[in-house]
Amino acid sequence: MRRIVLIIEYRGTAYVGWQVQPNGVSVQEVICGAIERLTGESVSLHASGRTDSGVHALAQVAHFDTGSRIPADKFAFALNTYLPADIRIKGSMELPAGGENGFHSRFSVKKKHYRYTVLNTLHASALTADTALHIHYPLSLERLNEAARLFLGTHDFGAFKAVNSTAASTVRTVYISEWKREGDTLVYDVAGNGFLYNMVRIMVGTMLRIGMGYDGVDIIEKALADPRRGNAGDTAPAHGLTLRRVEYLEFDTDDVLRSNRL
Amino acid sequence: MRRIVLIIEYRGTAYVGWQVQPNGVSVQEVICGAIERLTGESVSLHASGRTDSGVHALAQVAHFDTGSRIPADKFAFALNTYLPADIRIKGSMELPAGGENGFHSRFSVKKKHYRYTVLNTLHASALTADTALHIHYPLSLERLNEAARLFLGTHDFGAFKAVNSTAASTVRTVYISEWKREGDTLVYDVAGNGFLYNMVRIMVGTMLRIGMGYDGVDIIEKALADPRRGNAGDTAPAHGLTLRRVEYLEFDTDDVLRSNRL
Repeated sequence: MRRIVLIIEYRGTAYVGWQVQPNGVSVQEVICGAIERLTGESVSLHASGRTDSGVHALAQVAHFDTGSRIPADKFAFALNTYLPADIRIKGSMELPAGGENGFHSRFSVKKKHYRYTVLNTLHASALTADTALHIHYPLSLERLNEAARLFLGTHDFGAFKAVNSTAASTVRTVYISEWKREGDTLVYDVAGNGFLYNMVRIMVGTMLRIGMGYDGVDIIEKALADPRRGNAGDTAPAHGLTLRRVEYLEFDTDDVLRSNRL
Repeated sequence: MRRIVLIIEYRGTAYVGWQVQPNGVSVQEVICGAIERLTGESVSLHASGRTDSGVHALAQVAHFDTGSRIPADKFAFALNTYLPADIRIKGSMELPAGGENGFHSRFSVKKKHYRYTVLNTLHASALTADTALHIHYPLSLERLNEAARLFLGTHDFGAFKAVNSTAASTVRTVYISEWKREGDTLVYDVAGNGFLYNMVRIMVGTMLRIGMGYDGVDIIEKALADPRRGNAGDTAPAHGLTLRRVEYLEFDTDDVLRSNRL
């Protein structure tokens, strides 16, 4: 068996999320269907992590094992012919399945990068309705960044995880945590060695109240010191969130996206 | 009666275009429905021009006459509560309906600005599938701009109009005609005193063949000198096109979008 790794872009709007759910169509099952049409095999497809309904991915990573002899880089082209336009494979490669150097999309992750996009205008936008959260109350970039800086480093993020999360440890390290203004849009870029369930959305929900002046940054200091869910803010809506990049020892999705250039 | 002018953003994907058609839902009828729910009146809504199915607008302009006493700037807020997320009113104002200074969304236009977006990568994008044309064959920015420059100035654009167009004159003046690279994306910005039916899409379709090296720029010289439809290239797909800005003596939609900032 060969282990094939896919780099996947998707618009999450029409899906119940990455993972198979009883209540609708998941990205995972659509890609598994395309793999079955191509290879005749019913495979298990393992992602770097699940994404919620409405969350997008510029570069999700997932692998499956196959007996197919299709050249590794041809899977991207072949699968795209069986996939809807809102799911695109941006690259495919073969990596070792087992042994010391065995690759696993989830367990081998070194860093993940997410972006949360906020449109801060009086009226909402039709064109970005599914990809940015609209907030018509003025946000202070300075206050957002005062808040964002507090997440940098290694902390117990227990207050910033969904109550139904079952993670063994809630300690994570955040390497990048920064808001930037791009025209009428405020983007939050965050990178870490891993994220708890709903962690980015709760971090953003907490910061947005600070950016609007409703809360002080001490909310975050308290939530990191006393990691109970009730000490953090609301979960920001899913549709503003995009998984942008996953880094492994073996490869970086940014390099795969670069190789997509002509 | 008061004349109310709306500045409208829409994602054209789900619609048959601006204008009411028998085969689906139009942007025009959806907005007319919202106006009727708000005012109780069945109005005629006149746009700066129609857009085809799949074409988007960042700033379409349309007006209607009403007996309603709602303050002019409140129409935007009120109508948005009755509209789907893929149609948003970005601003509203009152302008004179008749007399020497009478305003008309179509007849008073001074300049219109369109943008055509091309994603030039190996694999297509899921997130921009509805808003950019994907071309996996390398395009030369230099050749595209050699072609684009030939459209500048006043010409007979008879070769660059759909055969079923009924415009009295096919002479138009183009003020801006330029391709720019933005990462993996090539955008074509064009401004003119008016555009024939399908004119921008045929101009783009003609330039894309030149940018790929299939045709020389002489194709455009010939089509402008001998303005028959057969002398120009194919009509580029609708979904890459966005109406970005309309300029009038009375106002510029760019100023309205700026006033949308917080």
